[in-house]
Amino acid sequence: MNTNICDKVNTNDVYENDRNHVIHSWSVQSKLNPLVVNEAKGCYFKDDKGKEYLDMAAQLVNQNIGHQHPKVVQAIKEQAEKLCYVVPSFATESRSSLAKLLSEVTPKGINHFFFTNGGSDANENAIKIARMATGKWKIISRYRSYHGSTYGAIAMTGDPRRPPVEPAMPGVVRVFDPYCYRCTFGKEHGKCNMECVKHIEETIMYENPDTVAAIIIEAVTGSNGIFIPPKEYFTELRALCDKYKILLIVDEVMSGFGRTGEWFGIDNFEVLPDIMTMAKGINSGYIPLGAVGLSDEVTKAIYDKNLFCGLTYSGHPVACAAAVATIKAYKEEKIIENAKLQGTLMTELLEEQIKKHKCIGNVRNIGLFGCIELVKNRNTKEPIVPWNGSGEVMDKVKKSLMDDGIYMYIRWNYIFIVPPCIINEEEMKKAFIAIDKALDIADGYVE
Amino acid sequence: MNTNICDKVNTNDVYENDRNHVIHSWSVQSKLNPLVVNEAKGCYFKDDKGKEYLDMAAQLVNQNIGHQHPKVVQAIKEQAEKLCYVVPSFATESRSSLAKLLSEVTPKGINHFFFTNGGSDANENAIKIARMATGKWKIISRYRSYHGSTYGAIAMTGDPRRPPVEPAMPGVVRVFDPYCYRCTFGKEHGKCNMECVKHIEETIMYENPDTVAAIIIEAVTGSNGIFIPPKEYFTELRALCDKYKILLIVDEVMSGFGRTGEWFGIDNFEVLPDIMTMAKGINSGYIPLGAVGLSDEVTKAIYDKNLFCGLTYSGHPVACAAAVATIKAYKEEKIIENAKLQGTLMTELLEEQIKKHKCIGNVRNIGLFGCIELVKNRNTKEPIVPWNGSGEVMDKVKKSLMDDGIYMYIRWNYIFIVPPCIINEEEMKKAFIAIDKALDIADGYVE
Repeated sequence: MNTNICDKVNTNDVYENDRNHVIHSWSVQSKLNPLVVNEAKGCYFKDDKGKEYLDMAAQLVNQNIGHQHPKVVQAIKEQAEKLCYVVPSFATESRSSLAKLLSEVTPKGINHFFFTNGGSDANENAIKIARMATGKWKIISRYRSYHGSTYGAIAMTGDPRRPPVEPAMPGVVRVFDPYCYRCTFGKEHGKCNMECVKHIEETIMYENPDTVAAIIIEAVTGSNGIFIPPKEYFTELRALCDKYKILLIVDEVMSGFGRTGEWFGIDNFEVLPDIMTMAKGINSGYIPLGAVGLSDEVTKAIYDKNLFCGLTYSGHPVACAAAVATIKAYKEEKIIENAKLQGTLMTELLEEQIKKHKCIGNVRNIGLFGCIELVKNRNTKEPIVPWNGSGEVMDKVKKSLMDDGIYMYIRWNYIFIVPPCIINEEEMKKAFIAIDKALDIADGYVE
Repeated sequence: MNTNICDKVNTNDVYENDRNHVIHSWSVQSKLNPLVVNEAKGCYFKDDKGKEYLDMAAQLVNQNIGHQHPKVVQAIKEQAEKLCYVVPSFATESRSSLAKLLSEVTPKGINHFFFTNGGSDANENAIKIARMATGKWKIISRYRSYHGSTYGAIAMTGDPRRPPVEPAMPGVVRVFDPYCYRCTFGKEHGKCNMECVKHIEETIMYENPDTVAAIIIEAVTGSNGIFIPPKEYFTELRALCDKYKILLIVDEVMSGFGRTGEWFGIDNFEVLPDIMTMAKGINSGYIPLGAVGLSDEVTKAIYDKNLFCGLTYSGHPVACAAAVATIKAYKEEKIIENAKLQGTLMTELLEEQIKKHKCIGNVRNIGLFGCIELVKNRNTKEPIVPWNGSGEVMDKVKKSLMDDGIYMYIRWNYIFIVPPCIINEEEMKKAFIAIDKALDIADGYVE
């Protein structure tokens, strides 16, 4: 990073104005002490003191292409110069190009796209479209899941962040995840009967298949702990959906665009979704954007009906231009292939450097979608901090990593390893040295 | 407009890719024949045939600053070059500046801001914050209203666009609007007892004040027909809210940033909101952005609590930079003052040129927030097309306007007059000549 933008910014003002006027998400306002950041490049960002951090979280698991990719920056500048905005009812160059391009990289049959501002409203619109296409209204989602924070999306989100959110949208029925390390059904993978799918059928029967419009799942569960389902999970789930005429909505907001070493998470499992939702990696968050991809069948079912979906910024020209440039760069620079390669390295490093720590309950990754799960006791599997909480040990782990210039996404007893998909071997190894060191601290908290 | 970008764009591809791959909002897909638009400047945009349109709709009532304002375009380019994205938990220059700037232009007491991607999620988060601040959960909204299309926002939206949206978020109780032309209470303004407020108190009593967190209203109703309440409406509503410890949420998504000739719609009524929501005019839609403004009191009530609100692109650096430039330009170029001035002209033109048409039931405007309401019969006030529908006459009116190069927002029996706030007298008069002509056609449908 050669530029030094911070020289031109009065960082005191940035901090003061933030503390005086900005409300931050998912936090207690009175306890905040935010880092001032105005500079970033590739896998790194820099704070106002000039300290550089290796971004092992891709910010919020969205900067798959890394920070300030010149082709994407250029595309934004060109589109801004050309046309910032027109109504979604017009046809525009960047949206048309993006839709075409998406149809080429998404799973077979997904050829029509409705554009939104992010992942939450992609999922909101996916439900509307599923209800419209099927004439049914219930939605099955999973407990350990995150689908967004608006009232439809948060209703589907299982993860424990309810009051004062509820009451949210009714009609959501929640089932359990394929969380093999802590199997809800007390089984062990390989010795089980895929109860994690079987109980969904039982649920459908009780709810009545004629009322269930869709099942929505993350292709690979994200913020709730990176659960990589066995391949047969998806095969059986797809069969269930076909049997009961239920649409399979795959949420690829976090798992899409190279995160798992494939274009989409679902590509690892050889089944086709009916609807898929996207955001984050679609343009790496350079401009807010989300999308709902529809299969030809679903498109046909809604094509002659009035679509009760919409938003002012749907198909935003600048956001779409950024996405076109991002997807082209993923292809041209073989970024998806790199994610797969570095994912293999991550698996090795997890095995060699991480698993030895006695605080480690489980490690898992698929591509660059990785998670380390910390426990107090390997036998009881008791999490190192209370369920849905935090604690001194995780604070210390985070501090050690930050001191070493490694920025990571830490939640509950999980450390996520989700760097930009452009990361190289050297950067991966650098991060793992710091993780290894931080886990030494955590080892001291094992009972 | 000197540039001719369409030369460089293969407009056939734009159209073909759109029809093959894009799902459009609020429409029947099989009936679409979208205009291809890749060029715009000031109050005008151009289609792929080179035909220029005067934009009397400010697109979706959001381009208050007009198309391609050089200062906003420049700000986007500079911020894109500097920093496209970091997580909302960091403090960034453009978000801090924007929050400070907003605190200076929003009503007294509104000093803290949570940023979103648009108006829907601004309203979604406003409800969450209201529930969190009060510990109560019901929300009162109005029937003729629009607050967005996500499942919380659409639940508050009264306007008739329900299936397959419902069931949406429960807990919303709907009341009636101050629609003086078609008073729900059969009264006439000046001879009434403000039943449009009074019945809200009755509703609160039945619902139980201890369960009602907030009343959400558009400062001036937008898409449902531009209802400009009498000043005492707001005075009495504010008093009701104070009496029952209910928060007043004012939705300024459409009415904000100069639309009514003041910074915000509520500024016309001399009352203070507890929470206000914004989008559209905040940066004229150049980059997706919304915001929730909180009073000091509301901020205090939530300051020590964990905020269950968030989204990946909250406080997006590029969107915030565009908003800073937009708000500065509103000030420097006296755009709000211009909206007031041209609003006065609109009132005159409505009186002089429009009211004479026998198809006119009512005309009304506040600043550049205007509406013409067409009826079959002035005595019965029967709308010229069926309620919540369209018809040949409105199609012909639209065609006449489009043929004359005037783009307008037409819905049901309403023609909205909502141009960019930078419009000048000449452009206003040009539009009104075309409107006058189009209404001659409508006069032929009067019974």
